[in-house]
Amino acid sequence: MRLFTLLAATAAILPLALPAAAAPLDANTINRIADESFNHSQVMQTAAHLTDQIGGRLTNSPAMREAERWTQEQFRQWGLSNVHKEGFDFGRGWWIERASVRMTGPRPLQLRSIPIAWTPGTSGALAAPIVVAPMADEKDFADWKGKLAGRIVLVSYPAPPKDDTSAPFKRLSDADITKLDQYRQPVNDSSTEADKARYERTMFPRKLDAFLKAEGAVAWVRMSTRDNGLVHGTGYNYQVGQTPALPGVEVAAEDYRRLARLAKVGPVTLEIDSKVHFEDADTKAYNILADLPGSDPKAGVVMAGAHLDSWVAADGATDNAAGSSVIMEAARILKAIGARPKRTIRFALWSGEEQGIWGSDAYVRAHFATRPLNPDAELAALGPSFNSRTYPIRKLPDYEKLAGYFNIDNGSGRLRGIHAENNFAAVPVLKDWLSPFKSFDASTVVTQRTGGTDHVYMQSVGLPGFQFIQDPLDYDSRTHHTDVDTYDHLRAEDLRQAAVILASVLLSAANADEPLPAAPLPTQPVDTDPFHYRNPADK
Amino acid sequence: MRLFTLLAATAAILPLALPAAAAPLDANTINRIADESFNHSQVMQTAAHLTDQIGGRLTNSPAMREAERWTQEQFRQWGLSNVHKEGFDFGRGWWIERASVRMTGPRPLQLRSIPIAWTPGTSGALAAPIVVAPMADEKDFADWKGKLAGRIVLVSYPAPPKDDTSAPFKRLSDADITKLDQYRQPVNDSSTEADKARYERTMFPRKLDAFLKAEGAVAWVRMSTRDNGLVHGTGYNYQVGQTPALPGVEVAAEDYRRLARLAKVGPVTLEIDSKVHFEDADTKAYNILADLPGSDPKAGVVMAGAHLDSWVAADGATDNAAGSSVIMEAARILKAIGARPKRTIRFALWSGEEQGIWGSDAYVRAHFATRPLNPDAELAALGPSFNSRTYPIRKLPDYEKLAGYFNIDNGSGRLRGIHAENNFAAVPVLKDWLSPFKSFDASTVVTQRTGGTDHVYMQSVGLPGFQFIQDPLDYDSRTHHTDVDTYDHLRAEDLRQAAVILASVLLSAANADEPLPAAPLPTQPVDTDPFHYRNPADK
Repeated sequence: MRLFTLLAATAAILPLALPAAAAPLDANTINRIADESFNHSQVMQTAAHLTDQIGGRLTNSPAMREAERWTQEQFRQWGLSNVHKEGFDFGRGWWIERASVRMTGPRPLQLRSIPIAWTPGTSGALAAPIVVAPMADEKDFADWKGKLAGRIVLVSYPAPPKDDTSAPFKRLSDADITKLDQYRQPVNDSSTEADKARYERTMFPRKLDAFLKAEGAVAWVRMSTRDNGLVHGTGYNYQVGQTPALPGVEVAAEDYRRLARLAKVGPVTLEIDSKVHFEDADTKAYNILADLPGSDPKAGVVMAGAHLDSWVAADGATDNAAGSSVIMEAARILKAIGARPKRTIRFALWSGEEQGIWGSDAYVRAHFATRPLNPDAELAALGPSFNSRTYPIRKLPDYEKLAGYFNIDNGSGRLRGIHAENNFAAVPVLKDWLSPFKSFDASTVVTQRTGGTDHVYMQSVGLPGFQFIQDPLDYDSRTHHTDVDTYDHLRAEDLRQAAVILASVLLSAANADEPLPAAPLPTQPVDTDPFHYRNPADK
Repeated sequence: MRLFTLLAATAAILPLALPAAAAPLDANTINRIADESFNHSQVMQTAAHLTDQIGGRLTNSPAMREAERWTQEQFRQWGLSNVHKEGFDFGRGWWIERASVRMTGPRPLQLRSIPIAWTPGTSGALAAPIVVAPMADEKDFADWKGKLAGRIVLVSYPAPPKDDTSAPFKRLSDADITKLDQYRQPVNDSSTEADKARYERTMFPRKLDAFLKAEGAVAWVRMSTRDNGLVHGTGYNYQVGQTPALPGVEVAAEDYRRLARLAKVGPVTLEIDSKVHFEDADTKAYNILADLPGSDPKAGVVMAGAHLDSWVAADGATDNAAGSSVIMEAARILKAIGARPKRTIRFALWSGEEQGIWGSDAYVRAHFATRPLNPDAELAALGPSFNSRTYPIRKLPDYEKLAGYFNIDNGSGRLRGIHAENNFAAVPVLKDWLSPFKSFDASTVVTQRTGGTDHVYMQSVGLPGFQFIQDPLDYDSRTHHTDVDTYDHLRAEDLRQAAVILASVLLSAANADEPLPAAPLPTQPVDTDPFHYRNPADK
């Protein structure tokens, strides 16, 4: 199958090979997996430890370090092999000890807020008048030059609230799942222009911080992108030497809009009192890996992964203690039932996902395939997304060994099927492996590709990386990166179901006659929009 | 019509009188009202001042005092007559200067919280280990005796989260409105037993505070009744001499459940730092009244009212700056168009509604009708709900003068019609008055009665008090008594529409040949459930 892939890369005229015969897992084995997951589950204990005990696991924070230690300890206690961590360059650690934002004039009011990740604290209470100066682009700086000295600057446009007319908690209907089976063509736009736009978005917060500092502003406030009081605190200046000069806080939309309205009428003063800490003892982030050894060392590896890191506003429960706990539970279950697969099954807990999918990209580059960095060194330093469309891709010795990768990163919802990720040849194989799970409403295979998480840099070098379909629950509407991403929002029955399916699919993949069929090895694509002009009005 | 009412009280066998002929308002007048409301609206400026500038208006707080002053000033500026306040005995004022609740162990975490109204502050940071001791009833105290000394006590049962599967923001469909047209029979249960149950609910927080104090607990924490981080801070021990001994705070459901889970595993410590203030200079609360004088002093009065007081978590926008602003806007509009009604139109902004509908009850007792207090003095002191089913009702001279009362207290949603409040004779009259507003989808009249706000003690003495049907928007799902009840959640188009309809209905009522037909004068009802036994399991 890999042979076919190689030829296809150079001779696309070859007919599609028929998929390898793939049998579903034998029913007795599924029974033992289900018994272990439903009658002896540890998945909620694992999730509770990661969320309640450890809490938000910002990359390189003390909490993430503890999660790196504890997850390895768990894998070892469960009898997994080759348990270890693999480091990659990332940046600083950061955590919040305490934080308060209050309006002190025209009237006293405690606001709902959170410090923005990797911004400095205030060293005591910082009180100052505000100025509402929405800036989305360097061009906007001119409007505010000379007007910000000594001010706390509200940098967001106070966008009006939305009427929230859809149910926050959702499960997928059959119709919803049918809609998912839509092929999405890859968009191969001019890489330099796409990079440039992304570069501007990435660099703007740094330029804004420098501008505010130069103007003598004392702190800045951003508005939450959600209504009903939820806050996030996401920030991206985590690299050594890139820490912002000014404290930045995110304030709930309702509180931010009130400040903006009051500022139209008269003076408004804020008091920010935040104590945060940076950690620089080790600027490497670490992926955690554990093996269930295969009986045939030459047969290769099947992998499952989820990111262990999270944002800092709450406990990173649905994003992604849920996926991490299911990965760990599948490992525990397969060990507990004494599974002896042909291929090694490797479990990965990634780091640095929230800041740009660093961990899984580093693993791919270390083990499977390398590609040139972006020729622009400044862009290259900004992370994997700036280095993912360079060619040629050079395979490493282990490239042929990866027989399949399965990612979980869409909250706590039960699995409803899998995305074949535009890989037509994988569809019938995945259908066979999911065929025992019709009674779980989990046997759907759709071609549609997905992005934004740890399978994408497998795909971008042609490796067979896949992500499951999950019921959304309240992931998109409430918990994603917010201060209510807590254990409460997990659903035990869903996570136990996911562990059964993941363990079963991994065992099927590990014992299959053939590795999962890969898509053709990516080569420099043709620009699908060669006559495009960028509209200056587009931000 | 009043004559009929009087006779009906003593001779219920009389046939229902036919309603008085009632004509809709002439179209030219409606045009002038609409022009004033849609082209010269002040309703959002009024709402912004009450919410953003003044903020939460807890009864007798400095903010409520400012609202009492400012609303009178507005009425005077707009040229209303007889603008004044009328006081009634209430209790203490209370407000929050600053508040913070943090978990300090097993890890540091800022929690979403609010001090509970009328509980004392902490005079500095108060740190202590927690104990989870859910108590719903005096009987539960025995379980915790001797176990609470030096602890911050979590007194709520950590109820599991709900799957939020309905849209938070709703407008009423025609089908929804049709469903509203359901007569609700009054439930006349044994008053002593109903009072006893309500008495226990009212007294429990006092008994709990005394128990916690006696046990040497240092503070208590309650769980929010909503998920997704919303908090309320409602509390009811506002009377002089009833202030709780211990600081009490409400914590977001997600945060509370986390504390409760952690406490199952190991020690948990909290730090509460709240600075609150009591105001005792004046223990009277005040209703605000303003008149548009009628041309015929003998013709009587038509009233419209809304409560100006609010809870303290946010700015009391949808509950009830919305209603207050519509009442004020209707007054402004009618004055601005030079309306000269036959009857005086009186605008009322009530106080003490959130603590038990004190203000409108006091007004009824001062002007319209008295009834004996509850023979049990302890019950009588607890407020209007304990004194609303005593007989006989004695009419005061002004009783016959009230030709109709219209209440607004259901958020910011546009008016969709009106509840006839089980008063069949009023239905055709109200239909006539709303008939011009079909194009607003606002001409529905339903018999169904409503409760819980300032028209109920008019009804309870037989006066014609009514409440409008409104689109709910996100009132029930998000803003009602919560920390996101802010100006953002108001809808300008809805409030402008409401002002047009209220002004028009008031003018129709003020100029009608006959007052609105009242229901029969209430007399001691027959117990509808004479064979009822109370189930001890019912709380």
